[in-house]
Amino acid sequence: MQLGMVGLGRMGANIVRRLMRDGHECVAFDVNPESVASLAAEGATGADSLADLAAKLQAPRVVWLMIPAGLTGQVVEQVAAVLEPGDIIIDGGNSNYRDDVRRAAALKPTGIHYVDIGTSGGVFGLERGYCLMVGGPDEAVSTVEPILRTIAPGPGEIDRTPGRSGELAPEELGYLHCGPSGSGHFVKMVHNGIEYGIMAALAEGLNILHNADAGVREAEHSAEVAPLEEPEFYQFDIDTAKVAELWRRGSVISSWLLDLTAAALEANPTLNGLAGRVSDSGEGRWTVKAAVDVGVPAPVLAASLFERFASRDEDHFANQVLSAMRQQFGGHQELPAGDVLEAGGRKAD
Amino acid sequence: MQLGMVGLGRMGANIVRRLMRDGHECVAFDVNPESVASLAAEGATGADSLADLAAKLQAPRVVWLMIPAGLTGQVVEQVAAVLEPGDIIIDGGNSNYRDDVRRAAALKPTGIHYVDIGTSGGVFGLERGYCLMVGGPDEAVSTVEPILRTIAPGPGEIDRTPGRSGELAPEELGYLHCGPSGSGHFVKMVHNGIEYGIMAALAEGLNILHNADAGVREAEHSAEVAPLEEPEFYQFDIDTAKVAELWRRGSVISSWLLDLTAAALEANPTLNGLAGRVSDSGEGRWTVKAAVDVGVPAPVLAASLFERFASRDEDHFANQVLSAMRQQFGGHQELPAGDVLEAGGRKAD
Amino acid sequence: MQLGMVGLGRMGANIVRRLMRDGHECVAFDVNPESVASLAAEGATGADSLADLAAKLQAPRVVWLMIPAGLTGQVVEQVAAVLEPGDIIIDGGNSNYRDDVRRAAALKPTGIHYVDIGTSGGVFGLERGYCLMVGGPDEAVSTVEPILRTIAPGPGEIDRTPGRSGELAPEELGYLHCGPSGSGHFVKMVHNGIEYGIMAALAEGLNILHNADAGVREAEHSAEVAPLEEPEFYQFDIDTAKVAELWRRGSVISSWLLDLTAAALEANPTLNGLAGRVSDSGEGRWTVKAAVDVGVPAPVLAASLFERFASRDEDHFANQVLSAMRQQFGGHQELPAGDVLEAGGRKAD
Amino acid sequence: MQLGMVGLGRMGANIVRRLMRDGHECVAFDVNPESVASLAAEGATGADSLADLAAKLQAPRVVWLMIPAGLTGQVVEQVAAVLEPGDIIIDGGNSNYRDDVRRAAALKPTGIHYVDIGTSGGVFGLERGYCLMVGGPDEAVSTVEPILRTIAPGPGEIDRTPGRSGELAPEELGYLHCGPSGSGHFVKMVHNGIEYGIMAALAEGLNILHNADAGVREAEHSAEVAPLEEPEFYQFDIDTAKVAELWRRGSVISSWLLDLTAAALEANPTLNGLAGRVSDSGEGRWTVKAAVDVGVPAPVLAASLFERFASRDEDHFANQVLSAMRQQFGGHQELPAGDVLEAGGRKAD
Repeated sequence: MQLGMVGLGRMGANIVRRLMRDGHECVAFDVNPESVASLAAEGATGADSLADLAAKLQAPRVVWLMIPAGLTGQVVEQVAAVLEPGDIIIDGGNSNYRDDVRRAAALKPTGIHYVDIGTSGGVFGLERGYCLMVGGPDEAVSTVEPILRTIAPGPGEIDRTPGRSGELAPEELGYLHCGPSGSGHFVKMVHNGIEYGIMAALAEGLNILHNADAGVREAEHSAEVAPLEEPEFYQFDIDTAKVAELWRRGSVISSWLLDLTAAALEANPTLNGLAGRVSDSGEGRWTVKAAVDVGVPAPVLAASLFERFASRDEDHFANQVLSAMRQQFGGHQELPAGDVLEAGGRKAD
Repeated sequence: MQLGMVGLGRMGANIVRRLMRDGHECVAFDVNPESVASLAAEGATGADSLADLAAKLQAPRVVWLMIPAGLTGQVVEQVAAVLEPGDIIIDGGNSNYRDDVRRAAALKPTGIHYVDIGTSGGVFGLERGYCLMVGGPDEAVSTVEPILRTIAPGPGEIDRTPGRSGELAPEELGYLHCGPSGSGHFVKMVHNGIEYGIMAALAEGLNILHNADAGVREAEHSAEVAPLEEPEFYQFDIDTAKVAELWRRGSVISSWLLDLTAAALEANPTLNGLAGRVSDSGEGRWTVKAAVDVGVPAPVLAASLFERFASRDEDHFANQVLSAMRQQFGGHQELPAGDVLEAGGRKAD
Repeated sequence: MQLGMVGLGRMGANIVRRLMRDGHECVAFDVNPESVASLAAEGATGADSLADLAAKLQAPRVVWLMIPAGLTGQVVEQVAAVLEPGDIIIDGGNSNYRDDVRRAAALKPTGIHYVDIGTSGGVFGLERGYCLMVGGPDEAVSTVEPILRTIAPGPGEIDRTPGRSGELAPEELGYLHCGPSGSGHFVKMVHNGIEYGIMAALAEGLNILHNADAGVREAEHSAEVAPLEEPEFYQFDIDTAKVAELWRRGSVISSWLLDLTAAALEANPTLNGLAGRVSDSGEGRWTVKAAVDVGVPAPVLAASLFERFASRDEDHFANQVLSAMRQQFGGHQELPAGDVLEAGGRKAD
Repeated sequence: MQLGMVGLGRMGANIVRRLMRDGHECVAFDVNPESVASLAAEGATGADSLADLAAKLQAPRVVWLMIPAGLTGQVVEQVAAVLEPGDIIIDGGNSNYRDDVRRAAALKPTGIHYVDIGTSGGVFGLERGYCLMVGGPDEAVSTVEPILRTIAPGPGEIDRTPGRSGELAPEELGYLHCGPSGSGHFVKMVHNGIEYGIMAALAEGLNILHNADAGVREAEHSAEVAPLEEPEFYQFDIDTAKVAELWRRGSVISSWLLDLTAAALEANPTLNGLAGRVSDSGEGRWTVKAAVDVGVPAPVLAASLFERFASRDEDHFANQVLSAMRQQFGGHQELPAGDVLEAGGRKAD
């Protein structure tokens, strides 16, 4: 079928490529004409404006937006202005699901349908396919299903879940209509929240392995911290790159994120050059706020988010407060690289 | 080569089976004669005592113990008593790596080698192979390497990590000599610590999805908790079984634990009948204690452990203390299923 | 000076009493005429409607609302309707500071000033005074300062902070103009977030003391959890009521919340009869969401909130998911009160 | 009565002073003769060796050790060598309670009693008194009770807990016999664990206040983090020093640690010059390990400990692993001070 794509960054362009390979017809637009030209050279129909894009699509039109979340609101309005009742706008970006709920309601009087799709897959999606979490009205989602089938990974070589039989369900093909508008990005949001947690679990565990030689290095950090009490049990020099590779096979924690970790450590075993200032996009935050809203405990997801904040020194003032308190009851200045010791060598409370 | 197996529970027996399939010769012993007879019927050489087991093996003997961690100490001593210098004892169970360090030291004067192997794979190991994390002296580990190659999963259909080339390294075959005695179980310990974290990330995320309809159910829990402030954003009825299945394909969080989750939810979408009292074996605890010892932050791994404790109501007294404090400053009794409200309806601090 | 009080629940009434004791003149209104009559009997001027209240106050009028947060929005509108430009509305309840920002903006065109006051003190406030966190325009806050001085605790017998000298600052008297509209409730919100954290720290610590006899009780919980490894170190039968009392004197953690804890444990040392289902009002939640918004790590505050959720079994589905996963890789049913053990007694991963 | 003090650091010397003020007779020893001379000048009897100290005390002797935890083991042995059956050794330092259990058992055959005392009070103890948590056999604790009464703070001006009447109990005077050997330091350990949690709650909350102006500073940190979604709600410039002072009066969170915080912020409102590298002594770690051992959830106490580790960059390798993973699935280098953005500006998963 036909699809209009607005936003030809890596993901937008790759989705177009994946669709064209499977015989779909794509009309492509980007604010950058070179991106349009480049994709036109690969077989897409280029458009030089949103109006042009709309003109080159037959009704009911399907227009997929793949643009930064911050711009989505205004572009949805611009696209809606060139569409007709019965047409469909898909937001495939990383929008906050609350915006979907609002946009779907705002578009309702125009007769234009709104479908939100959480899209996971990163740079591997062109070959591997994209996992699609879809929210929106039944009719619109049905209309776009042929496109979803192509973009999604399909069954692949993954073992079928025991108990499932017969025709493959959409979720076994890699796309799912999760519910009304907003539910697609809601599920994607939680997906990313989980992703933060899994990443943190791997990172914390590897950090423990990385420090399994603490007993050997003991002399180094003397006064600053409590002394290691049983150094004889921390004498291991573990090769974390090899361990990550090992766990890919037969272990309970084998996972795609572990695959990536193994690849990263293979390429750079010491991780030299990485500052370890870890960014976060919005989904991890929204997940924690949603958990708080509905009253669900999410200590692991929250901790993984807060670790990222701390990696960027957002804990600085809090740590200064702690040092300041310790000075107060210890009666001493913060040592340059050390602990608060009293005259007799006894640590303060 | 030849191996003596002590302990023919599911894992011990399956390892013997996997070895025999690949042409190794196994002598098998268990305190339960039926277990021995059963495996002898499948081709193993049965032994009716540890001495008999030792007699049926040629020096240098290799004896693998696959027994509950609580018994390992005494069985190591019993096995050592029937072995000779140059023989090798393998502990393939879930021992605390500290016991390995102690046992290896204790056996040193006898000339018997001690190898600790963390073994991951669960009930799927017979077919899938077991991921093996190995600690011990080089010579002994080299000796047992043919056995490790058979028990491990091998390369399978897993994509090779970019950057690796040439002959497959042991870790690509599913086993790794991690370092001296204790390091095998240390790595296994951290593996399980990570496993707890990943499991918790998935469980918390699915719980948020499960409660995405909080806005619909709002009326129910009125006074007990803070009212849901924007119920319009929590109107989704998400099918968690389908979402788990979906995420297996193309998503960033695809993993073996997700596969199991999808299977569990497919078999029992409501999880009816499960009390949700989650057990923990020792490794998760040891991981957190090791993190504390070496001074590594592990908030995610610790939170996942504490959630399990709380699932078994080990937080009960703490929660009673909180309720008691609230009574004190609120000046009211704990309501049967409710909140502490003042006469004017204002909540206490 | 003169004050109109709307809402004569415990806190509203007590604030009126505290004001009258200090010579202020109060006009009191409540939807419940008996509350009005009761306070009129103590010397207040009763009002039978908001219009009556406004009529009985001289301009510029100051009207303090002390009502449930859920009603504040509509009552602010009703009160504004009977006031004049230059009059002042104070919201002394537990409003979300975001509502203050919105209300102050909405009232701006009317010329009525809006002041938000976070009020801490609970049932002890009548005697002890209320800690007041105030947000709003300078002029309006200055106008109401005589009232604030009376309601606040004053300097009391608290040692002056070293370095402070001269006339007592407002914060030393127990009230503070924190900034523009919303800042009062923002500071109160964070105050309550901290309160949750302190309460949790005390509760967790007391729970550890409560279980310091785990080595004695070891036999009881056998299979369900990892066995206690060194029971000889957990043989203490600690009297938590006495310990709480002890810590009130000379310890680093002496605090008002500890005073309350000691009182609660003195009254009911076993805390029998408390279900331990801990409620939360909105502030703890808003604090965590604010931390997430501004990117500040708040693992302790978040953990204390999530513990309350878990105390009400909001972790149930997550725990069921964990049990379900363990069934999958352990290949066994969840034992009634126990662990997942394999045939050979070995615990699954 | 008579007491021998070994270790004349600040705390040891101040305890001697407090005892002498109340008429007790003290024999003082330190490896530093000047410390002995200095205290002798204040009225103590100086000793120039442990043997001399023993000779100057009448049986049954009471010798209090106030020395760094790392030295306690050997000094206990040295002191025991000069004492007789029926004499009492007190360890008033910050020992691990497990060492007390071992030492008490080791001393048993000698007939020398061992008493462990957790001592809280810091540099304020000379005037304020020390909160004493005591473990050991009944007889020995009874013998030293006159000393404990003097060192402890006494009832002070603290309100009596409602429900208590009659003669003041020991815990109301500031000392408590908690149980057998080790229980004193066990209770002190948990006290410090709680202290970490309370400190963290205050520090996190103040950090949120410190960042309440995030909406004003928004432009600064653009690409690195998720954009602040509603900057209009984070426009407050909160004076944290004034807020800390305010909360000392009438608020629910008033506490000694808050007093110290107010003093620290009064002295240095910006906390300039503090690196925020927060040390930890052993008790916080032991508390978390004890919680893990007995299966009690302690997420708040653990989080407060882990925050300190992270303040010293012990999370560095973990954060590098996270950045490395993000590079892998984002397909991009870590930006110098920024986020992983794709060509089209869309953030990777």
